Amino acid sequence: MAEFELIARHFSALAPGGAGVRLGVGDDAAILEAPAHRQLVMTLDTLVSGRHFFPDTDPENLGHKALAVNLSDLAAMGAEPAWALLSLTLPEADEAWLSAFAVGFRELALRHGVALVGGDTCRGPLSIALQLTGLVEPGRALLRSGARPGDRIFVTGTLGDAALALEGLLHSRKVDGALLRRLERPEPRLAEGRALVGIASACIDISDGLVADLGHICERSGCAAVVQAARVPRSAAVEADLQERGDWRPLLAGGDDYELCFTVPRQNIKALESSGVRCTAIGEIRAGSGVKVVDESGRELPSMHGYDHFA
Amino acid sequence: MAEFELIARHFSALAPGGAGVRLGVGDDAAILEAPAHRQLVMTLDTLVSGRHFFPDTDPENLGHKALAVNLSDLAAMGAEPAWALLSLTLPEADEAWLSAFAVGFRELALRHGVALVGGDTCRGPLSIALQLTGLVEPGRALLRSGARPGDRIFVTGTLGDAALALEGLLHSRKVDGALLRRLERPEPRLAEGRALVGIASACIDISDGLVADLGHICERSGCAAVVQAARVPRSAAVEADLQERGDWRPLLAGGDDYELCFTVPRQNIKALESSGVRCTAIGEIRAGSGVKVVDESGRELPSMHGYDHFA
Repeated sequence: MAEFELIARHFSALAPGGAGVRLGVGDDAAILEAPAHRQLVMTLDTLVSGRHFFPDTDPENLGHKALAVNLSDLAAMGAEPAWALLSLTLPEADEAWLSAFAVGFRELALRHGVALVGGDTCRGPLSIALQLTGLVEPGRALLRSGARPGDRIFVTGTLGDAALALEGLLHSRKVDGALLRRLERPEPRLAEGRALVGIASACIDISDGLVADLGHICERSGCAAVVQAARVPRSAAVEADLQERGDWRPLLAGGDDYELCFTVPRQNIKALESSGVRCTAIGEIRAGSGVKVVDESGRELPSMHGYDHFA
Repeated sequence: MAEFELIARHFSALAPGGAGVRLGVGDDAAILEAPAHRQLVMTLDTLVSGRHFFPDTDPENLGHKALAVNLSDLAAMGAEPAWALLSLTLPEADEAWLSAFAVGFRELALRHGVALVGGDTCRGPLSIALQLTGLVEPGRALLRSGARPGDRIFVTGTLGDAALALEGLLHSRKVDGALLRRLERPEPRLAEGRALVGIASACIDISDGLVADLGHICERSGCAAVVQAARVPRSAAVEADLQERGDWRPLLAGGDDYELCFTVPRQNIKALESSGVRCTAIGEIRAGSGVKVVDESGRELPSMHGYDHFA
């Protein structure tokens, strides 16, 4: 494994430093020190080749995306990112691949103040395990469980672009560059998540599709949601596709958006308006259970059932 | 992936709770609170099927070992374990396999006060990514870098059993149960690591073999080590094998021992003796670089060169 140790060193040299790092890569473990009066927000995800990404995905994009999807979890909690541990399993010691991966990873890490403090590399089928730690004021994290009947439902950005791009790739169609970028270089909504602390009653990032992820909020909060399909924000590309095919799934059930879906009590709507968070109201929390999507005349879209399993 | 979500729930239900856990499995991330005046010690490792373990390894043993090898990293730092995040990649949703894995994991986790607070499961080639966080008093962690000329070198337990067991399995020989247990259910030396805080000048766990891992201490400390081969503690089985084959490699360069190798300044030897840590003196730190292994007449064992790459 000597060649992998070289790669690990090559990679660690690319890692930006950060606050609270007492000992980084090179010992049995990293030593970190959190500021006083902060809770730790921790997430670990593995991306597997052929399942979460195409084996021939551009490694620079993959380095970006591996970090982005984990940062998106911190954004959904309203946490400020701090430290990362990365475990790379690679079929061979390919320095060119790794160097490109590190460029994509590092660019995003620097932008959000994430320090890579440890991890390992080993040989095997390509997969990427990434653990992130973020910081949040005690008791202030955004949870999935805080939504209450009467709360308004919002999303950041636009939905469906990544799903449309993925569908194009799967059918070997030419995919527009801007659309592809939404799939391959998602931007985690960290600033938005931080700004929503104290305003939103519940929050989740949209990785499995709006209906499924809003469903998680409903489940954990013990309530129902009604979404106005027409209000769900979309790009011109997704709108054109919707007009052409009449298929709501990329917009409502597509994965990989990494936008935030959150709920806001009525008394906090003014605070949301002055927070600077760009978002769109799409519906309302009600008593009951499950997610109902309705058209402009209030009729439930029949094809919404089973969307949980589309992704 | 609905079946995998079921498995995740099944697994999280088996996870023991622990101190400082404000929010465990079930949201976008876990929320943890460290006690005041503690540094965090963090490690992430991936075990890949066919590389770090045999694909048909008993899942209960594998659950134990995945946690044990990571706990061993915390032991080497003198840290007290706190929280774990587990990411399991499985070729199929095999509840019997996972249930047995969870039994092995949980038994060890309960014994050492580790709370499983998050992670994920997904489908793919079998691998296990595990992230652990431990706690240590500020500035008191045991590092690889503190050894100085004149320090004595010690190891806990006996070395070589796991390597001998692995060699037997690789050659399809019948392997004695006690030997196999050393390979498949290693016991992380957490109590020993904690007891060595303030006594040892440097410490590492032996995962790649004594010569390689002591070499890491030398490299990070900027010094050399001389080891008396005859003094390296071994079981009757390893001694018998050594007498029979004259091959020092299982003892000196075998991996998977998960004993601690540490250095102690002369003025701390009395404190070590009264610490209750069961260990054996095997050599001394000198000025220079590299690890030299000598026989009883002081001659360097010639075959030691290249042992770094045996594992």
